[in-house]
Amino acid sequence: MANIHPTAVIEEGAVLGKGITIGEFSVIRSGVVLGNDCWVGSFCDLGVQPHPNEFNDLLLIGDGATIRSHSVLYAGSTFGRGLSTGHRIVVRSGTFAGQFLQIGTGTDIEGDCLIGDFVRTHSDVHISQKSRIGNFVWLYPGVILTNDPMPPSNILRGVTIEDFAVIAVNVVVLPGLTVGMGALVGAGSVLKTNADAECLYIGNPAKKIGSFSKLPMFDETGNPAYPWNARFNRGYPKEITDAWG
Amino acid sequence: MANIHPTAVIEEGAVLGKGITIGEFSVIRSGVVLGNDCWVGSFCDLGVQPHPNEFNDLLLIGDGATIRSHSVLYAGSTFGRGLSTGHRIVVRSGTFAGQFLQIGTGTDIEGDCLIGDFVRTHSDVHISQKSRIGNFVWLYPGVILTNDPMPPSNILRGVTIEDFAVIAVNVVVLPGLTVGMGALVGAGSVLKTNADAECLYIGNPAKKIGSFSKLPMFDETGNPAYPWNARFNRGYPKEITDAWG
Amino acid sequence: MANIHPTAVIEEGAVLGKGITIGEFSVIRSGVVLGNDCWVGSFCDLGVQPHPNEFNDLLLIGDGATIRSHSVLYAGSTFGRGLSTGHRIVVRSGTFAGQFLQIGTGTDIEGDCLIGDFVRTHSDVHISQKSRIGNFVWLYPGVILTNDPMPPSNILRGVTIEDFAVIAVNVVVLPGLTVGMGALVGAGSVLKTNADAECLYIGNPAKKIGSFSKLPMFDETGNPAYPWNARFNRGYPKEITDAWG
Repeated sequence: MANIHPTAVIEEGAVLGKGITIGEFSVIRSGVVLGNDCWVGSFCDLGVQPHPNEFNDLLLIGDGATIRSHSVLYAGSTFGRGLSTGHRIVVRSGTFAGQFLQIGTGTDIEGDCLIGDFVRTHSDVHISQKSRIGNFVWLYPGVILTNDPMPPSNILRGVTIEDFAVIAVNVVVLPGLTVGMGALVGAGSVLKTNADAECLYIGNPAKKIGSFSKLPMFDETGNPAYPWNARFNRGYPKEITDAWG
Repeated sequence: MANIHPTAVIEEGAVLGKGITIGEFSVIRSGVVLGNDCWVGSFCDLGVQPHPNEFNDLLLIGDGATIRSHSVLYAGSTFGRGLSTGHRIVVRSGTFAGQFLQIGTGTDIEGDCLIGDFVRTHSDVHISQKSRIGNFVWLYPGVILTNDPMPPSNILRGVTIEDFAVIAVNVVVLPGLTVGMGALVGAGSVLKTNADAECLYIGNPAKKIGSFSKLPMFDETGNPAYPWNARFNRGYPKEITDAWG
Repeated sequence: MANIHPTAVIEEGAVLGKGITIGEFSVIRSGVVLGNDCWVGSFCDLGVQPHPNEFNDLLLIGDGATIRSHSVLYAGSTFGRGLSTGHRIVVRSGTFAGQFLQIGTGTDIEGDCLIGDFVRTHSDVHISQKSRIGNFVWLYPGVILTNDPMPPSNILRGVTIEDFAVIAVNVVVLPGLTVGMGALVGAGSVLKTNADAECLYIGNPAKKIGSFSKLPMFDETGNPAYPWNARFNRGYPKEITDAWG
């Protein structure tokens, strides 16, 4: 049964699934298609049209989304099931994201981005246009993925982040670079070269320290801490983590 | 006399003191206890329940709070008198803060934090879970206090910031570290070791420069600039600054 | 013809030009003067009084402004025609800005700032009080312009950014410094000295690399990439870019 607060504005042309909750004063615009069992907090603006007066783009949001207060999602994007956002996020048009994307509070996704499954961004991440992000990627608070090699220019070279990569807090990744599968970029680094798969990079400019397997876990075992999915599975479906062994 | 805008939503079960102002379209949820003479701007969401359908946590806000627009405070936290926030701040559950906390615009406090008296954060500060912050601490714009030494992991090692410490703009403090009493960490630093009391640290990685007493004031006296409370008292009560001499 | 959403709150004393659009739940306070053909999104709060109960400051916004959702503009500031903001920006009192200012999502302008014409800030920029910004300046995501040389102090030494300067992502500029005309400061730098006109600075601390003319364009021509206005003119009026040759 829908639970739509009487102060919410649901425009004609918005399509709502079953079991939807919409919070106080939120606006769901024409062109929004919300799956079943979605929860939208207060003061959200879903389905903002990037080109009003032309035609209506759609905003497709899969089942089971949680969208926290003050968030803005433009029309022209698609999110798989299980989307979860923090507060006051913004996603512009042209983002196509897989299942179970988590977007941290204050994060800004500029649009024209491809994002895989089970990606998790923390707070205040900035993802520029034309970014390409794989599956099981982690982006920590304050990470900036850039796209303009000669600012200002019309050349947009998005960053590619491969599966299982981990980008720690406040890291800047320069335009057009690739962060390889499982690579780890340490806190406060400025990455100016590609990062090899399963390697650790630290510093400004970031230098390759070596294989991430050299990092021992902070416990009595002293086992290698990476790849992280050998030891961490919180929040992933069992059918996936079983395959991780 | 209360001054509650007619568009505000005050849920049954919210407890409001005397002399309260609530701005346009703000939501005050069941479980909120607002002290006397509090001022809440527009588009705020106070008392968000972290575990809806279970039980109602309380959000206790002391007398004389000023909470600016678009801010979100979860239930399950307590703030002493004189809280002052910028715009669009978020504080999650489990934060216990003393008197006269100032929280800058866009700052994100992740919950499970202990914060002393007279702490001031500027804009866009990120305070991770399990942070421990003393009294009279300053956190400047863009500071990130981290907590995960092996991201991603289930190990949360919060940062400890002791009394009178000053963390300048865009500093990252790595997990589990302690910034000693009165220590000063310079702009843009990445702190990877503990910081000794009354010392200055600068760089990425931050290096100890020496005692903070070597920094002369930018004026004709050339007196030492630190400890700062020997020369700066704006906004603190007279009974406190008198004791500072 | 005005297009004011019925849920918007327009206070008596607000002055609206012709062809105005005001989105859902926005608040336009007494003292706001909006020029013709302005567009205001949802959940905005325009004309916040910094000193309520004293007198009403004005907020003057020129013709053709676009102000996106969740933005806050205090009374006591003036913007020339063609203002364009992202979402959830905040501008405090005492900012005087020229024509065609662009302010990125989440940017925070602290007030008491002078800003020239055609300035563009991207997301999450922090501009402290007493900043002085020329014309055609670019500030990329996460840039912080500071103002306190001995934090905390009552000495406010704002930064000066001269015409055509480009400050890349996540750069910190220390208090009181001048970034010369057309200078380029690279991503992730911490600028601790003045930057000479038409020179390139990179690093933490930022070092002078030399003339920006050494940077070749990323194309077959290999022409110098800077000054940027010799090769980039998107969004500027033809009468201006014609003069650039």
